[in-house]
Amino acid sequence: MTSDPSDTGLLAPGWVGAPAADTTSDSAWLRAMLDAEVALTRTLASLGLAPSAAAAAVAEAARTNRFDVRSIARRARAGGNPVIPLVADLTEAVGAEHGPYVHRGATSQDILDTATMLVAVRTLDPLLADLERIQTALARLAARHRDTVMPGRTLTQHAVPTTFGLKAAGWRSLVLDARDRVRTVRDGLPAQLGGAAGTLAAFTAYGADDPRALTAAYAQELRLADPVLPWHSLRTPIADLAGGLAFTAGALGKLAADVLTLGRTEIAEVGEAAGGGSSAMPHKANPVRATLITAAARRAPQLAATLYGSLAAEDERPAGAWHAEWEPLRDLLRLVGGAARDGAELADGLQVDEESMRLHLFLTHGLIVSERLAAELTPLLGRARARELLDEVARRTRTESRSLAELLSDEAELKDIDLAGPTDPAQYTGSAGSLTDRALERS
Amino acid sequence: MTSDPSDTGLLAPGWVGAPAADTTSDSAWLRAMLDAEVALTRTLASLGLAPSAAAAAVAEAARTNRFDVRSIARRARAGGNPVIPLVADLTEAVGAEHGPYVHRGATSQDILDTATMLVAVRTLDPLLADLERIQTALARLAARHRDTVMPGRTLTQHAVPTTFGLKAAGWRSLVLDARDRVRTVRDGLPAQLGGAAGTLAAFTAYGADDPRALTAAYAQELRLADPVLPWHSLRTPIADLAGGLAFTAGALGKLAADVLTLGRTEIAEVGEAAGGGSSAMPHKANPVRATLITAAARRAPQLAATLYGSLAAEDERPAGAWHAEWEPLRDLLRLVGGAARDGAELADGLQVDEESMRLHLFLTHGLIVSERLAAELTPLLGRARARELLDEVARRTRTESRSLAELLSDEAELKDIDLAGPTDPAQYTGSAGSLTDRALERS
Amino acid sequence: MTSDPSDTGLLAPGWVGAPAADTTSDSAWLRAMLDAEVALTRTLASLGLAPSAAAAAVAEAARTNRFDVRSIARRARAGGNPVIPLVADLTEAVGAEHGPYVHRGATSQDILDTATMLVAVRTLDPLLADLERIQTALARLAARHRDTVMPGRTLTQHAVPTTFGLKAAGWRSLVLDARDRVRTVRDGLPAQLGGAAGTLAAFTAYGADDPRALTAAYAQELRLADPVLPWHSLRTPIADLAGGLAFTAGALGKLAADVLTLGRTEIAEVGEAAGGGSSAMPHKANPVRATLITAAARRAPQLAATLYGSLAAEDERPAGAWHAEWEPLRDLLRLVGGAARDGAELADGLQVDEESMRLHLFLTHGLIVSERLAAELTPLLGRARARELLDEVARRTRTESRSLAELLSDEAELKDIDLAGPTDPAQYTGSAGSLTDRALERS
Amino acid sequence: MTSDPSDTGLLAPGWVGAPAADTTSDSAWLRAMLDAEVALTRTLASLGLAPSAAAAAVAEAARTNRFDVRSIARRARAGGNPVIPLVADLTEAVGAEHGPYVHRGATSQDILDTATMLVAVRTLDPLLADLERIQTALARLAARHRDTVMPGRTLTQHAVPTTFGLKAAGWRSLVLDARDRVRTVRDGLPAQLGGAAGTLAAFTAYGADDPRALTAAYAQELRLADPVLPWHSLRTPIADLAGGLAFTAGALGKLAADVLTLGRTEIAEVGEAAGGGSSAMPHKANPVRATLITAAARRAPQLAATLYGSLAAEDERPAGAWHAEWEPLRDLLRLVGGAARDGAELADGLQVDEESMRLHLFLTHGLIVSERLAAELTPLLGRARARELLDEVARRTRTESRSLAELLSDEAELKDIDLAGPTDPAQYTGSAGSLTDRALERS
Repeated sequence: MTSDPSDTGLLAPGWVGAPAADTTSDSAWLRAMLDAEVALTRTLASLGLAPSAAAAAVAEAARTNRFDVRSIARRARAGGNPVIPLVADLTEAVGAEHGPYVHRGATSQDILDTATMLVAVRTLDPLLADLERIQTALARLAARHRDTVMPGRTLTQHAVPTTFGLKAAGWRSLVLDARDRVRTVRDGLPAQLGGAAGTLAAFTAYGADDPRALTAAYAQELRLADPVLPWHSLRTPIADLAGGLAFTAGALGKLAADVLTLGRTEIAEVGEAAGGGSSAMPHKANPVRATLITAAARRAPQLAATLYGSLAAEDERPAGAWHAEWEPLRDLLRLVGGAARDGAELADGLQVDEESMRLHLFLTHGLIVSERLAAELTPLLGRARARELLDEVARRTRTESRSLAELLSDEAELKDIDLAGPTDPAQYTGSAGSLTDRALERS
Repeated sequence: MTSDPSDTGLLAPGWVGAPAADTTSDSAWLRAMLDAEVALTRTLASLGLAPSAAAAAVAEAARTNRFDVRSIARRARAGGNPVIPLVADLTEAVGAEHGPYVHRGATSQDILDTATMLVAVRTLDPLLADLERIQTALARLAARHRDTVMPGRTLTQHAVPTTFGLKAAGWRSLVLDARDRVRTVRDGLPAQLGGAAGTLAAFTAYGADDPRALTAAYAQELRLADPVLPWHSLRTPIADLAGGLAFTAGALGKLAADVLTLGRTEIAEVGEAAGGGSSAMPHKANPVRATLITAAARRAPQLAATLYGSLAAEDERPAGAWHAEWEPLRDLLRLVGGAARDGAELADGLQVDEESMRLHLFLTHGLIVSERLAAELTPLLGRARARELLDEVARRTRTESRSLAELLSDEAELKDIDLAGPTDPAQYTGSAGSLTDRALERS
Repeated sequence: MTSDPSDTGLLAPGWVGAPAADTTSDSAWLRAMLDAEVALTRTLASLGLAPSAAAAAVAEAARTNRFDVRSIARRARAGGNPVIPLVADLTEAVGAEHGPYVHRGATSQDILDTATMLVAVRTLDPLLADLERIQTALARLAARHRDTVMPGRTLTQHAVPTTFGLKAAGWRSLVLDARDRVRTVRDGLPAQLGGAAGTLAAFTAYGADDPRALTAAYAQELRLADPVLPWHSLRTPIADLAGGLAFTAGALGKLAADVLTLGRTEIAEVGEAAGGGSSAMPHKANPVRATLITAAARRAPQLAATLYGSLAAEDERPAGAWHAEWEPLRDLLRLVGGAARDGAELADGLQVDEESMRLHLFLTHGLIVSERLAAELTPLLGRARARELLDEVARRTRTESRSLAELLSDEAELKDIDLAGPTDPAQYTGSAGSLTDRALERS
Repeated sequence: MTSDPSDTGLLAPGWVGAPAADTTSDSAWLRAMLDAEVALTRTLASLGLAPSAAAAAVAEAARTNRFDVRSIARRARAGGNPVIPLVADLTEAVGAEHGPYVHRGATSQDILDTATMLVAVRTLDPLLADLERIQTALARLAARHRDTVMPGRTLTQHAVPTTFGLKAAGWRSLVLDARDRVRTVRDGLPAQLGGAAGTLAAFTAYGADDPRALTAAYAQELRLADPVLPWHSLRTPIADLAGGLAFTAGALGKLAADVLTLGRTEIAEVGEAAGGGSSAMPHKANPVRATLITAAARRAPQLAATLYGSLAAEDERPAGAWHAEWEPLRDLLRLVGGAARDGAELADGLQVDEESMRLHLFLTHGLIVSERLAAELTPLLGRARARELLDEVARRTRTESRSLAELLSDEAELKDIDLAGPTDPAQYTGSAGSLTDRALERS
């Protein structure tokens, strides 16, 4: 056991078992590198720069499972990247005749960057599906609870009433923002092909006369975008992924932060479908999905920072900035992929306790509508007197434990006024309903 | 001197004096908060919810210089934000009659968020102009040096030749990517209006019956976008600014990293128009613009990380996540605004030493074209023999200090082959020229 | 108003008015640079390398207020640091005779780094005093509430009881850890003197023959530590400050996180002495101190990251890594200095509501002691039956709204057992008391 | 291949195969969790709270390899941590009789935190050995090259001469600083034992009457420090690890940054023992060790930031802050462990080309000693004239390609002065030698 240096997610309940775990594993990356090598040889063959048989041989060799991830990882140390030993193994696998066509004209970074883009696409597709699932569930919640009144909370304190519908619509709005950003990024992810220093020179030496055709064919083979320039040290795609994924982590983190708050023992307005248990405490139901999403949201910004930092990369290919991208990008893909999976489970199963929400509206003895009363009483009593009266009554709600409505009804000044409406929290939700409707129009 | 707690950029040569310094100062922020208050009262007046005279009085009071930034800053401690004391001062300034219409229905965050968006727009406009200036200068450099050959460098070592044109085209490509991202973000920056908990309830209490009209009019008054929902705790605009600005810092950081490298005493292929001096060393000409841009690029990702982290904000308005945005966003706007200014000076004045570039092509005794020779000799000698020969000759270039061309011409195997072309670095630039042309098509 | 580019803390209620605001302002930094220049000339005079009159002249010139921060800031752009224009002004101020002794032998970084260390010391001293004030207040709270029972909360849910004394003792323990780390860092902060490339060569050229005496005298003059080597690109002191300050921000952030949680409207077990008000809602009392500390704790780690990143600085003095330190270090000093000030106010005034704590122990119908009951019943009923019974009873507490004690007393199996103690949350605080005592022994 | 979700370091040439890879794998963490469980039962037995046979049974079960990391990882999702399924498996493994003593009184976090500390110790020990190896190699280099003169470089430009000895001594000084910080952290790493909410209550329920004895025995069993308080949400050890490791990454990053710079094709003053090859370019020898260390130094600060951020954790055990620590701390341990391994290889094999260093002293035509000449000529010619003369001569070195010494010897004013010494870069190294000696005294 102790001699096995492999990881399978023991410290990662946030992403273990998620689609992103499969699409970002070492094996998946190796597969994507092989896909890039296959596409390269096919492209060369399609342009008459390699025999069709060579392309077929490379594809056949790549299809097998003969590549030893662990050995390649270990041999990657010498040159500092895993493509060098992989090319050696692949060359050997295809045999002497076709070997010379393996990796022809390319540099290691062409293959690894292209593989990274393939991995990203393969991770973002299920991630986008999970975001879709979340927004659908939240739309349903928002519609169902359009008029479910609850305390609005600011700086941890009850402020004025809001509705759960508006809250859910807000969560959904962020998720849609995330989806739109990720989708845009995903659709622009480019293939990488530049050769040793991004000039495509070796391809020219091997006979390619139209670089535009070369890279276009390669990109098409991979179903990736065809970039204007090789981007070995122009890292727009990586930075865009960083931004889109950090955004998504934060969007889900907002949902999780609210679920954690609203699910506290004392609040209990919402709850996860299935709480996580405890070995010692039979009664415990922990908000595990929200906890794991929160953990992801705490990590993602710093991973993105490392990736943004790699934009400032010297030379045609940098010594360190590129290498610093690999693991953080994988971590970010995994983490956010896992968080989207957890977010989908969370949103699908979210329990809403309308009764708790209603009861909590009265926790401040009615002060939750003090803003409205200030607005209503000002024209009647003048601004100064209205404020004075409300300040005094607010104090008394606490000392006498009587409600605002009761205390105000004792006031002679107000005896002709119907206070039932103005003191009812459920009647002070402003435009929550129409805002919710408006937000739900977006698809 | 020591008793003045104000800052004017002593530690910030990167942004002092830049447009962004003016647009992001305390005064500029105060001005923007006043603009938001004026727009609010005007909006209310336009909808019949306040007298026109009140709107005029607020506008007139805001136009004066009577607001004491320092006092407001100090009094902001009590409630934790500067809007509360500003509203007190503004209310007093407009007098008893119109005072009640100041800030009516709004919450502090409505005003501060709106002000932040105004500040952002006012900072991004000159920033975009500077990016435009940079891309224009780089386009000119790329076109002029389309065929200026220089060493391509990877992992700090000469790899194969490239052109300075392609390099400049690459820098420009990143700058265009930055410009496009910043422009998109800028055009979507929304006004903020939600009231205490984002339901617009107080506006309703004061008589507003159509929230959509209210926020639309307010946004139009400010020439900001009209958001679907109040975004007190849905921080898409802040995260988008973080992403766009971190990207821009990195894009400029790439340019600066290359200028620092290529301008080293030993390389001296490029130089800044005016190097910074040294008090002690008469000969020193430091690459100051590139240095300051590099400093900005080192800082921006972490500032962005803090802002992305604030997405995960609890409740209708959070206790800390919002407050943690203010200074980092200002810092980011300033830093990147300053870096764009420095980038423009840098790009406009960049000195290119074609002769140094040419000479450096021979620093490796011709090994910089070893890739090409491998491609050329393989069909003639077979792959194994070609590689063996080149490895041996490469070794001898170092031990005998003779050039690759010379050593190869001694080889009997190659006596019938014209090696002049294949050993000339200037003839091994691949598709650099056509890639440059293609990149310059983008506008 | 709009034309004033200076900042006085409008966006910084967290540190405005704190000791750290004064000690880290532009003026304070300028003062510290002048102190460094004065110390340098004095040192030279003390070693016979400058006339005493020159040292006196520099000291006299530095004492005046003639230096214009804004002008120096603006002129700093040319060479990329503020020392160059400051030296020019100082040289002019002392006149032709003594001018040549100003800044003699030093490089800009010697002065700016030394000034930074002086600023750090001047900021850390009051910060340490505030940490002391916090720990004293927390010690008092821990002692007073040694036996005040409250719910222990894990993953947002009630787990088992704890005491407020233990909680306060824990907060204090972190604050003491912070204090110890900051104190160690503070006491090691070194002067900087190395000359152009850290060899002290210019001093030798001007006649210094014992570098050890030179730097020792300089350090002593400044009451800073005497470093073994010039540290222009060996940034241990900066990294140590980063670590100590990030730690402190986090330690205070833990206190603030708990205050925010425990002060929520629904929990209200603790409260700030004076809550921040709201313009619109008369009843609002916001936890402003905890909010601002939380904001600082969210920002500090990323500022520290930038500073740790600057350790990897190339050459004898780097192009960017150094410049990237200035503002983040100032921000960190200010933020954490401000947070310590707020922490002291918070801890001094913290309101504890023992009655709320007591009441909340019963929110789970007694399930908060389920762990204990499992332990007690296992020997009596066997492990499996004990667990089964508790699971069932736990379910029934929720559906029947009866307490655990009541439900268990109905069970025939348990009729001979005294359940009063085991079901009393106040009797299940384990070693909370003795742990509190032990923690309070530390000073 | 594609269905295997395990990782073995394919994207991590920086740490694959290093001691840290073994000590931080999933298996190693599982082993450490089992060690913690074994220590707990042993402790209970030693205090009479469990039968010795139970302790023996747990130890025996843990020794076997029957635990399936992958299954445990997958089942960890339900409760959000891997201890819950591990305890289930361990309980089953020991059988019905001893099962009840497994994990008795503990909470999951007790075990995972303790395991983390064991993993940290096991990683830091070889890391410290590698730092020792590095400092020894650097001390040797510093001593050997005490008087090897080379250009000192500031802001990328030649400034004044320095020595390679001083440079190596500086690198070593940082490495010693790192070693001292890591060692202090390592020696203070504590065991964790607190039970459900840190009160040790369950242990009391099971009969423990002296918590101090309990935790002391547990810590001693594990050879970890005995903490004053359970630290479930007092994360000093994690933050200390973050600081120590980020520091070490930066210290090694400084060394790597210099090696990358000094090893550039145009500079070539130092080189790695064995450069990494390229598949396409026979001549390429890449500085792979320095590249990978640089990548680690770029990532470590942001990983540390996430960990510092987790200090601000709410409640007795937080929902997310804790979970956000696991992978970043592992990443940091691995990365820095790997970087230390690479640093040791780098330092041991570093090639120094004294001849290149000497030649480069003349790249500026002698201007590298302009500072000295200013000092020497000022007393002779007056400050103004000296500066004027040097400025003019500096200009002419560039336009006429003649050396400073030559040009000055033409000056009539200077005809009586021996300029040989003052214009010799090798004679302007200031105190480099004695500083090196002094730095080497430190051990």
